[in-house]
Amino acid sequence: MSELRKDPIVGRWVIISTERGKRPSDWSEEPRIKSGGFCPFCPGNEDKTPPEIMAIRPDDSQRDVAGWSIRVVPNKFPALQIEGDLVRKGQGNYDMVNGIGAHEVVIESPNHAFDLTDLSDEQVAQIMLVFRSRTLDLKKDSRFRYILIFKNHGVAAGASLEHSHSQLIATPIIPKRVVEELEGSRRFYHLKERCIYCDIAFEEQRTRVRLVSASEHYIVIQPFAPRFPYETWILPRTHFSHFEAMPEQLYAELARVLKDTLMRLNVVLGYPPYNFMIHTSPIQEPALSEYHWHLEIIPKLTRVAGFEWGSGFYINPTPPETAAKELSSAFVKTSEG
Amino acid sequence: MSELRKDPIVGRWVIISTERGKRPSDWSEEPRIKSGGFCPFCPGNEDKTPPEIMAIRPDDSQRDVAGWSIRVVPNKFPALQIEGDLVRKGQGNYDMVNGIGAHEVVIESPNHAFDLTDLSDEQVAQIMLVFRSRTLDLKKDSRFRYILIFKNHGVAAGASLEHSHSQLIATPIIPKRVVEELEGSRRFYHLKERCIYCDIAFEEQRTRVRLVSASEHYIVIQPFAPRFPYETWILPRTHFSHFEAMPEQLYAELARVLKDTLMRLNVVLGYPPYNFMIHTSPIQEPALSEYHWHLEIIPKLTRVAGFEWGSGFYINPTPPETAAKELSSAFVKTSEG
Repeated sequence: MSELRKDPIVGRWVIISTERGKRPSDWSEEPRIKSGGFCPFCPGNEDKTPPEIMAIRPDDSQRDVAGWSIRVVPNKFPALQIEGDLVRKGQGNYDMVNGIGAHEVVIESPNHAFDLTDLSDEQVAQIMLVFRSRTLDLKKDSRFRYILIFKNHGVAAGASLEHSHSQLIATPIIPKRVVEELEGSRRFYHLKERCIYCDIAFEEQRTRVRLVSASEHYIVIQPFAPRFPYETWILPRTHFSHFEAMPEQLYAELARVLKDTLMRLNVVLGYPPYNFMIHTSPIQEPALSEYHWHLEIIPKLTRVAGFEWGSGFYINPTPPETAAKELSSAFVKTSEG
Repeated sequence: MSELRKDPIVGRWVIISTERGKRPSDWSEEPRIKSGGFCPFCPGNEDKTPPEIMAIRPDDSQRDVAGWSIRVVPNKFPALQIEGDLVRKGQGNYDMVNGIGAHEVVIESPNHAFDLTDLSDEQVAQIMLVFRSRTLDLKKDSRFRYILIFKNHGVAAGASLEHSHSQLIATPIIPKRVVEELEGSRRFYHLKERCIYCDIAFEEQRTRVRLVSASEHYIVIQPFAPRFPYETWILPRTHFSHFEAMPEQLYAELARVLKDTLMRLNVVLGYPPYNFMIHTSPIQEPALSEYHWHLEIIPKLTRVAGFEWGSGFYINPTPPETAAKELSSAFVKTSEG
């Protein structure tokens, strides 16, 4: 079983895979996605993944056979394992937790060649609802404190399989990045009695200099201080602390907005590799007035080097105002057109 | 001039290059190091860099001509600029500072083909003394709060030129990563009245499970919770809060230890790309009892993906105990042998 360890100085947690410890020879080759080779996510190969957790498939169809439109399976090489009791222990100044958690893969379509932007609005809406459904289910497990939903698209963004998929990791620890956002927005709330994300959504809508697009319930912006060029945030315009706590129709709208935003990035940047992640409130928390879920998209365009790793200070060569201008005026074919 | 902007939620600073704003077409090609092409760092091409700030060269030789063994020049494409007054300003919830700072390049050798491990111990010792000398000089400038010394080796680690060099960036802000280390070690000091790095050095020497090597004044370890496989730290065994404040002979010993460590990484990992950075106390602070300078080396073996970016949680497939065992037993030819 892997182990969660806490850096005693800065409090950052890491997952150490003590089992599948890579040997030096494993590092010698650049990771590659094989095109055209065998794909464990394609219909017909259901027995090459662990048994499915859920699937969108006709009512009369069997589990773990073809016929599904979306399929959720445990990750075959999970960073964390679902079985066992959570054990927290110390060793001198060092703190650790055994590697309990969930690591699931959402196979977004049976079609190997499609990426998210090729799917119908309805299919992307179903994916969003699958994210919600898995969150609601994992939330019942009191060992977990947080669920991170994310996607790696393209080799440079860390994807190891070509077939379009996203992932979900439930952790027994609230990740540092999220703790920082929670603490920051709490400080702001104490000062102003307003949610800082609501403020940002309102201000960016008003000034429009970093606005990419806006729909009835969402706003898409370039943040004021982006770490990466064309880093893009999608925020609900009304306050929801938890991703999974919205009325159903808002997931369909989110799907349209996400697809539209990815298409804009494709047009402007020529189909870049990217990561997206959903930042939401810790699952065991009640609705929070000070924190607001949102989705962050990071196109993979630059390399992070010594200065960034050493300082946590990022050098971004593209002002967000420039990126917003290009993305907002990008011609995007709607699914109707 | 570039702009330093602060994320209003988590307080992370970024440098936005408003001038050399990259356009989408600039992203289309993978950055490449040209081998065999023209090199602005080679002897004879001194006029292709900005005029030198300092150089190790014979007393009777001229500035900006060949004959040097180490040369320090301003970065031709600086992230921050040296000229101007520091202006801090706000805009609604947003905070920014104009891009004042220093960005220098240390050309480590006249020989294009050599990397750090090919240089003599004396040459590497001179490089360490140049780091100290530049720090002592920049320290006089009251606009600066921090100096980060770092090296990008290899394309995957963000190097844009092949000729071996390191860099130094002076910032008007203390970087977040450093603030976190300072705060963490301060908390520990309040609790125990000991420096946490001194504790770590002592404990790792005692248990030896994560020990790579030890010399009279330095210890080389794998940290307990490394973000990356084979992440390696070099710590002085006696307490020094500031890198630049050590007795002269300790820089020569540091050079030998650094070179030996890089050679071990080369042997075990087959000449990996890497970053190293020196974490030291903020330059305007007096000697601190609670913080201890150290050097971190990160071999570039994994890709950082959505989970890491989204959570600040790292998945490391190699336990530091495994890495330490391999590195400590690696056969390394000494410069004497």
